[in-house]
Amino acid sequence: MSNLSVPNLAAAGPVIEFERRILDSVPEIEHWFRQQWQEHTPPFYCSVDLRNAGFKLAPVDTNLFPGGFNNLAEDALACAVQAAQVAVERTCPDARKLVIVPERHSRNVYYLMNVARLQRILSSAGLEVRIGSVSEEITAATTISLPGGQSLCVEPLVRNGRRVGVADFDPCVVLLNNDLSAGMPQILRDIDPAQTLLPPPHAGWSVRRKSQHFACYDEVAAEFARLVQVDPWLINPLFAHCGEVDFRNPGGNDCLVSQVEQLLAQIREKYRILDLQQKPFVIVKADAGTYGMGVMTVHDAAEVANLNRKQRNKMAVVKEGLEVTEVIIQEGVPSYETVEHGVAEPVVYMIDRYVVGGFYRVHPNRGVDENLNAPGMHFVPLAFHCSCNLPDRGAAPGSSALNRFYVYGVIGRLALLAAALELERGDPASAAAPSAAAGAAGAGAPAQAG
Amino acid sequence: MSNLSVPNLAAAGPVIEFERRILDSVPEIEHWFRQQWQEHTPPFYCSVDLRNAGFKLAPVDTNLFPGGFNNLAEDALACAVQAAQVAVERTCPDARKLVIVPERHSRNVYYLMNVARLQRILSSAGLEVRIGSVSEEITAATTISLPGGQSLCVEPLVRNGRRVGVADFDPCVVLLNNDLSAGMPQILRDIDPAQTLLPPPHAGWSVRRKSQHFACYDEVAAEFARLVQVDPWLINPLFAHCGEVDFRNPGGNDCLVSQVEQLLAQIREKYRILDLQQKPFVIVKADAGTYGMGVMTVHDAAEVANLNRKQRNKMAVVKEGLEVTEVIIQEGVPSYETVEHGVAEPVVYMIDRYVVGGFYRVHPNRGVDENLNAPGMHFVPLAFHCSCNLPDRGAAPGSSALNRFYVYGVIGRLALLAAALELERGDPASAAAPSAAAGAAGAGAPAQAG
Repeated sequence: MSNLSVPNLAAAGPVIEFERRILDSVPEIEHWFRQQWQEHTPPFYCSVDLRNAGFKLAPVDTNLFPGGFNNLAEDALACAVQAAQVAVERTCPDARKLVIVPERHSRNVYYLMNVARLQRILSSAGLEVRIGSVSEEITAATTISLPGGQSLCVEPLVRNGRRVGVADFDPCVVLLNNDLSAGMPQILRDIDPAQTLLPPPHAGWSVRRKSQHFACYDEVAAEFARLVQVDPWLINPLFAHCGEVDFRNPGGNDCLVSQVEQLLAQIREKYRILDLQQKPFVIVKADAGTYGMGVMTVHDAAEVANLNRKQRNKMAVVKEGLEVTEVIIQEGVPSYETVEHGVAEPVVYMIDRYVVGGFYRVHPNRGVDENLNAPGMHFVPLAFHCSCNLPDRGAAPGSSALNRFYVYGVIGRLALLAAALELERGDPASAAAPSAAAGAAGAGAPAQAG
Repeated sequence: MSNLSVPNLAAAGPVIEFERRILDSVPEIEHWFRQQWQEHTPPFYCSVDLRNAGFKLAPVDTNLFPGGFNNLAEDALACAVQAAQVAVERTCPDARKLVIVPERHSRNVYYLMNVARLQRILSSAGLEVRIGSVSEEITAATTISLPGGQSLCVEPLVRNGRRVGVADFDPCVVLLNNDLSAGMPQILRDIDPAQTLLPPPHAGWSVRRKSQHFACYDEVAAEFARLVQVDPWLINPLFAHCGEVDFRNPGGNDCLVSQVEQLLAQIREKYRILDLQQKPFVIVKADAGTYGMGVMTVHDAAEVANLNRKQRNKMAVVKEGLEVTEVIIQEGVPSYETVEHGVAEPVVYMIDRYVVGGFYRVHPNRGVDENLNAPGMHFVPLAFHCSCNLPDRGAAPGSSALNRFYVYGVIGRLALLAAALELERGDPASAAAPSAAAGAAGAGAPAQAG
């Protein structure tokens, strides 16, 4: 595998130095992760979007309901199965039966292939796995044909007392692959505590906030940067948060305008110190939500001050028609990686605390400073299979795909650890819940403003 | 991976039925293994030799110091690293440094490649790994060039008070890849209990007995056979044991002659009931020892009664010149698998409780009823990589390499579980140690005779 081609990365200098430092510290890094996982519990699964600017390599989005398992290389599956076995042993060792609850609007064939792949991984890990949908359209067991001769049987999720399942199948575990943007469906509320719900309800987007995740990531990145002795900014996008915006009302985003201004000034200063010639930008996104909706690239605060009606409407709602009232403003990390001449960003997949693979999200028609999670993107599992744990310490810096992917796996796991902290602190059952992460600001970012 | 070719297997009928039964029971089997691993601790690593007769599929040897990691496919490494991470987390989560103690006579380049591969797996899992030899020939750090541009640095193992290590390197873990045939080397005796020795000293061949392992395997196979509702004989070779033989003295093996006679009679009866036309045979081997030395195929008790001097001498000593005084007589399982026209037997590799790969041991000049672990053998990792955990339940019975390898992984794990029981019961620190496994006879085999 060491002769894998390395995707093209322009302006790679500082990241290559960073890669060298990571490779020199593999035992310290892995030891540190082992310690962290003794204290914190990783989510059942997770995917992390990374951006590699050459001068900076950082996570920009952490998904607790990953929907792209179908994009993992076939070679990665054995590792995924092994990791799923660990996750099951840790979470629910007595489990025999599991129901996956997919996204409600699940006619997208790629998404259904993801569900089928997940079913295969978990079945191979030794569970009986069925698919229970909360969609009103699924009123009886429905078999859907998928490319490659596969098929997927989706059944209606049914409630029986305080337990849920599908017909004649009472699972020990209910695995959500539905990000709960619209809140916890009635059928899943207040279920028998003996029926394990994974991830926990507060991982859903009706509760979760990106700004809380990145506040946790600030802590993780700071500690990790101390360990490997780098500037934490190298791996951490600055961010700020606005708790009350109203995109429908012309004066409703004053907070946003001033936060964008301050954040751009901070980035500009950082670029000046490091003598970077790039033009700084920020990404404005809904603080809750997914699917790349409600995302905007901003180079100048004036752009936000003068949003036209179309832009306002685009930002005002995300998935399931939810109104956006909170936004996160995140330092833009340009992506200088290209795959097949398209701008590419790596997506790292994890089950339990293990990197099980990843792929490149590639968008041939988007710029280096744009969100790639948009129609027209495609996925390239190529050369990014189950190899994130095989650093090649003998290879020349920057020349080895194994090494670049190992580093991506490390950054992915840092975001995973942040998600663990976030879930711990957001746990309604935990005493520390209400305010632990709330109010924290980005790494040197302006304090949170309402 | 599902289009892997399946190695040729003559007379496969009953095993295909067995494969179907295993595949139908994947959730029960994996659930059962999870329960077992909650109660029993797997050895750090293990390899198991299997023989597939078509009518019977059984482990015939379980090695707690596996020496063929170099034969695993490169593709299998990521899973091996992940499994090693689990093993380290469970055994010694605080470990940073590890020393591998290789075989003393380690000029065999393939064996050294095994050590280098093990070093790579454990380094990738996040440990600093060095090689500390107990050989008198290694008096200073020695770098040995290996094929493919690799090299291996072997250093003398040094003792410092009650701790061992290599120069300026005090490891948390000492991993034995030396089967201790000659007993525990002085330098490793009575070391600081804070320094973890893996596997434990009583896993060495100066303590371990094959007959104790297979007595434990009897129990495991019986329970598993109940679970999947098959005759335990399908997966379990009958055996007997002689505790005091003297190959140098013509009358010294009367016990052996009578045990061979009884065991052959038992096999003949089993073959008669199942209407098998094969000629029964047994394998006589040293009860302690490895490397395929002191192994003999016997079709008739007269062969043992009338050993000539050359045969006596061959059986009388094994590795490190040790005298053989105890033997195990094991039902011979013919191998009807062939790879590249050579008789082949699968070898399954495990780290912690995970199958991490395997290969075929192929001997083009040996018969279906002979030990293949002999000069002239070669290894074919081909088509047997990290896929023992991906059963393809949709494939036609007998047509899928994934399914055959999944079954091999199950049988390998049964032997692994037997090794866990064996080490538990043999633990000098445990109260149950002295007699728990001793004295047990094979599944229906004649009682042990002195």
